[in-house]
Amino acid sequence: MSCKERVRAAVEARREEVNDAIDEQLPLARPERLYEASRYLLTAGGKRLRPTLLLLVAEALTDTDPQTQPYRSFPDLTDEPVDLMSGAVSIEVIQSFTLIHDDIMDDDDLRRGVPSVHREYDVGTAILAGDTLYSKAFEYMLETGAPPDRQVRALDELATTCTEICEGQAFDVEFEGRGDVTTDEYMEMVELKTAVLYAAAAAIPAILLGADDETVDALHQYGIDIGRAFQIHDDVLDLTTPSEKLGKQRGSDLVEGKRTAITLHAREQGVDIESLVDTDDPEAVTEATIDEAVAELESVGSIQFASDLAEEHVENGKQRLQRLPDNEARSLLEDIADFLITREY
Amino acid sequence: MSCKERVRAAVEARREEVNDAIDEQLPLARPERLYEASRYLLTAGGKRLRPTLLLLVAEALTDTDPQTQPYRSFPDLTDEPVDLMSGAVSIEVIQSFTLIHDDIMDDDDLRRGVPSVHREYDVGTAILAGDTLYSKAFEYMLETGAPPDRQVRALDELATTCTEICEGQAFDVEFEGRGDVTTDEYMEMVELKTAVLYAAAAAIPAILLGADDETVDALHQYGIDIGRAFQIHDDVLDLTTPSEKLGKQRGSDLVEGKRTAITLHAREQGVDIESLVDTDDPEAVTEATIDEAVAELESVGSIQFASDLAEEHVENGKQRLQRLPDNEARSLLEDIADFLITREY
Repeated sequence: MSCKERVRAAVEARREEVNDAIDEQLPLARPERLYEASRYLLTAGGKRLRPTLLLLVAEALTDTDPQTQPYRSFPDLTDEPVDLMSGAVSIEVIQSFTLIHDDIMDDDDLRRGVPSVHREYDVGTAILAGDTLYSKAFEYMLETGAPPDRQVRALDELATTCTEICEGQAFDVEFEGRGDVTTDEYMEMVELKTAVLYAAAAAIPAILLGADDETVDALHQYGIDIGRAFQIHDDVLDLTTPSEKLGKQRGSDLVEGKRTAITLHAREQGVDIESLVDTDDPEAVTEATIDEAVAELESVGSIQFASDLAEEHVENGKQRLQRLPDNEARSLLEDIADFLITREY
Repeated sequence: MSCKERVRAAVEARREEVNDAIDEQLPLARPERLYEASRYLLTAGGKRLRPTLLLLVAEALTDTDPQTQPYRSFPDLTDEPVDLMSGAVSIEVIQSFTLIHDDIMDDDDLRRGVPSVHREYDVGTAILAGDTLYSKAFEYMLETGAPPDRQVRALDELATTCTEICEGQAFDVEFEGRGDVTTDEYMEMVELKTAVLYAAAAAIPAILLGADDETVDALHQYGIDIGRAFQIHDDVLDLTTPSEKLGKQRGSDLVEGKRTAITLHAREQGVDIESLVDTDDPEAVTEATIDEAVAELESVGSIQFASDLAEEHVENGKQRLQRLPDNEARSLLEDIADFLITREY
């Protein structure tokens, strides 16, 4: 099996249980419209990659064979039961909250193939649904049954992560109006907006199960590394994947004038990135214009640069896993890292 | 001194310290626009009633003379230091987050005499500023230095409170479109939307300082009682206070067709509350129409009913305080309860 097939199998093997847990912990309570809106995106799909990551870290760390222990009472490093699944649901719920609020801010109409929450309901309900998921995520993280000192650390990781995601989103918005963003600034934004939630998904199971500080830190960094790689690969895909596969216009980042690892590198090579594509008239941009722009970015090595950068982060991330016992779950965590930069859309 | 003067003095004596603590814990960090927007409403004013309540509960509970102990290292019931102020800031920050998001939902232009955050900045920035304050409040609650088991309980109270505030706001929106809301439903909405944050402000210091469960529960209920009274009194003020004192149109609840303790009681007395004021043409409503409506509500005893109900809640709330030592701080907590239903605007 390829790494992609192994990751898909690992995710699929856990998806139903994760979905059931979400249903259990976020039932359709009163007020019904609020909980319907809060559940809407969560039940519309999603790979459940972050919950899978969290569960695999637990399996790798405790050296247990994947899926042989119940996630609701998973033996920690001293053999005491922890409700890991509640932590996994917490992370997925945070992801969902950020998507709902981001879609309002970006006024995106579609998400996971269905109307975004503020389109299906209204802006007020979408704000409130996101706010509800936000506190619910903290409630779920408080239901793991782990010893109090570990719960405090897990909640600290969760709260800091949420603050950083907000900061990342704010930088993203700020950068759209700035012509002088550096690659370093861009990478900081990516770390905050995208990578920290992977870091939380990887570090929190280690915290809950009682791992030592070095292991927690290594797993956090693994998450940061693969999260950065994920975003850079996304930037590459936007230019290199045919529109029909991508599910959106190829080159949309260029059309929208977004800064990416690729355009920022090109600018450093002397390319006038503002003139690559006419961003004043997005409707008029042709496939041929995108082809030309991509050719220019290729000629100065910017696409190769981004691909290499993503791969470098993946390799760093995989190195961090050396602190874990050598087992099947750890090997799947390596596969997830590889998967993030080999996926085609 | 009247209860109002004593409450004013108690609040004023602590306000500067609370304001300094907010400045300390929420500095103007990067990204600057995000933190500027997050701080905007907090620095625009606010009585700081909830933080004062939290600090007074701590002083009453530990039987220390008001303002003789540093709030940043306040001796708990076993004489170990707890950073109470960080908990007080947390509660004020939650209040600020809910105001920012509520103003977007209700499209209110003004708050505390200045433009609301989404008017001063934009909707996206206001959503994000609220989201940032949300997680910051959890971070602050994790910085009290209390033993982990108490921190876990305090965070649980905070998370549950936030979920309930969202539920209350959703009920409030739902009720605007429904003609058959009962008084019980209204009181449930008030408890969720408004009272639980008073309950958290009163219960959390007890949790952090190591009080027993009965005391924590009594203080929580004190907050619920006075929070309910606060909202009912607000409903009364809307009808009985001249517009210039109220800072908004007298009778605005009637004009907007909002359900309140008063109108719901009147309906139960057979009054056709829909026809009291023509809600289809708010601009055309005259002072005389409001006078007539108020006279009718008075004639069926609805305003008296609401005043009595508010007073009953205040008396209940004060009874709960019997579990605390009899001291000056407790007496100020009784004054706060009285103040909430004697304030004129």
